[in-house]
Amino acid sequence: MKYAIGVDIGGTKISFVLLKNSRVVETRKIATPKNKKGVIEAVEDNVKTMILRVPKSEILGVGLGVTGPLGKKRDVMLNPPNQKFLKGCPLAKIVERKFKIKTVMDNDVKCFALGETLFGAGRGAEIVLGITLGTGLGAGLVIDRHLYRGGSGAAGELGHMTIKFDGPKCNCSSLGCFEEYGSERFFKKMKYSPKELGMKAMAGDKKARQVFKEYGKYLGIGLANAINILDPEVIVLGGGIANVFQLFIKEAQKQIKKIVISPLAKKQVKIKKSKLGDFAGAIGAACLLWENKS
Amino acid sequence: MKYAIGVDIGGTKISFVLLKNSRVVETRKIATPKNKKGVIEAVEDNVKTMILRVPKSEILGVGLGVTGPLGKKRDVMLNPPNQKFLKGCPLAKIVERKFKIKTVMDNDVKCFALGETLFGAGRGAEIVLGITLGTGLGAGLVIDRHLYRGGSGAAGELGHMTIKFDGPKCNCSSLGCFEEYGSERFFKKMKYSPKELGMKAMAGDKKARQVFKEYGKYLGIGLANAINILDPEVIVLGGGIANVFQLFIKEAQKQIKKIVISPLAKKQVKIKKSKLGDFAGAIGAACLLWENKS
Repeated sequence: MKYAIGVDIGGTKISFVLLKNSRVVETRKIATPKNKKGVIEAVEDNVKTMILRVPKSEILGVGLGVTGPLGKKRDVMLNPPNQKFLKGCPLAKIVERKFKIKTVMDNDVKCFALGETLFGAGRGAEIVLGITLGTGLGAGLVIDRHLYRGGSGAAGELGHMTIKFDGPKCNCSSLGCFEEYGSERFFKKMKYSPKELGMKAMAGDKKARQVFKEYGKYLGIGLANAINILDPEVIVLGGGIANVFQLFIKEAQKQIKKIVISPLAKKQVKIKKSKLGDFAGAIGAACLLWENKS
Repeated sequence: MKYAIGVDIGGTKISFVLLKNSRVVETRKIATPKNKKGVIEAVEDNVKTMILRVPKSEILGVGLGVTGPLGKKRDVMLNPPNQKFLKGCPLAKIVERKFKIKTVMDNDVKCFALGETLFGAGRGAEIVLGITLGTGLGAGLVIDRHLYRGGSGAAGELGHMTIKFDGPKCNCSSLGCFEEYGSERFFKKMKYSPKELGMKAMAGDKKARQVFKEYGKYLGIGLANAINILDPEVIVLGGGIANVFQLFIKEAQKQIKKIVISPLAKKQVKIKKSKLGDFAGAIGAACLLWENKS
């Protein structure tokens, strides 16, 4: 068996990939329907098209990346942000029953981390921390090609780590959490989207460059915490903000050098930009099928 | 082989245990000599006495718990606090050569976490975070009976996690780190030792009880961060301050309930007091010999 199908179900779009071993042979992208029936039908239709491309007996299975936390058995979505209508939906089971093909599911950020470890910027490293910098800030830790999920499947909530306990109230219940400083929320305060501001900065706008420098400082503080605790070999940064990696990484590195306590850990860790691009989440979802194979 | 010898080399005392399977059959405790030769001789003399107690062929080996970080191969102490004279000392190799018995070495906090997982308050759990609350604040994560060491052996530096980035400068290079609020350093500001203050609080002193309540709040913030990132099943608190566990745990739990984002993670995690007491570190050091056996 050499084919795997990966699906990344985001709040605004659903991405599909068909992999032949580690190679992407087909991609698709559609707008996310706004109700449960629509999402299920869209996933089924596109997966079906991909299944029909290749001999069914050579398909390892389907991997689904979904938003928000999952139940302990990774069978249902507990509380998908921006897709409340999918709450409690056993999507993997639905797809598996429909096509009689093994289907697995996990959080989209964990899929991203796994994909970058197996086929992307973390390739070859034993311990990889994948972080997405977008609307929110999420993370997945991969140890020896396996996702570390914690005791209840909730590990990796790096965005909700407090970095300033008397800081402003975030959209979660914590105060001064990393997501407030390291995600798009940081830029919203300046009334810009990171994309617009990124273009200004790339064009040389000094004020815009300064904002990204400041962003890098806060990002560095959160990354330093992660390095102090997890000591990864590689950190892969993905999500929309990582597209302008070069605008903030120097400042982040400066903080890391300053804060991380172990000389070995700070010397060893490599911070890289996502390599799998737009389809990183879908490729990672397909990788769930390879997760337990070395 | 059923016997194992564990040695915990602290800044003020060295503890020794002889284990027969999981049972402690002998303990010893001495003051730590103030130079390298003295420490080596003291370790050798006491280990020798224990070796002579039992058939040598039945001894699995000797485990050493030492302060500070180790080299990547865990063969030398990189920078032992309060024992600078041991810097670069390959103590395990010295003991192994002397007695022709397998000898392994790791950081004392990691040994504590392993010991509590195998024989103490974390027994039976798959993911255990052991934390020592003393002069400093250290941690060790045990996954499936194995210590998680990270890419360079430096994982678990929870004390140097920033929880208030504009906070006071700590003794490390970071600002507002968890150790500043969660270790003895918190009490020093009040010009009390936690032990004295603990006795006052236990005797009903209201002001003293209030200080521990405040301590619990900060401890809870740091623990919530650890739970958000690592999602452990059990957290075991050891070190001197954990002796008055009941004075601060309620307040810490309150913060955890408030901050941790995953309902599953905060419901699941159990926060327990160390069970192995005074010899937890030495028992944990002996456990290094069992670490890779299930």
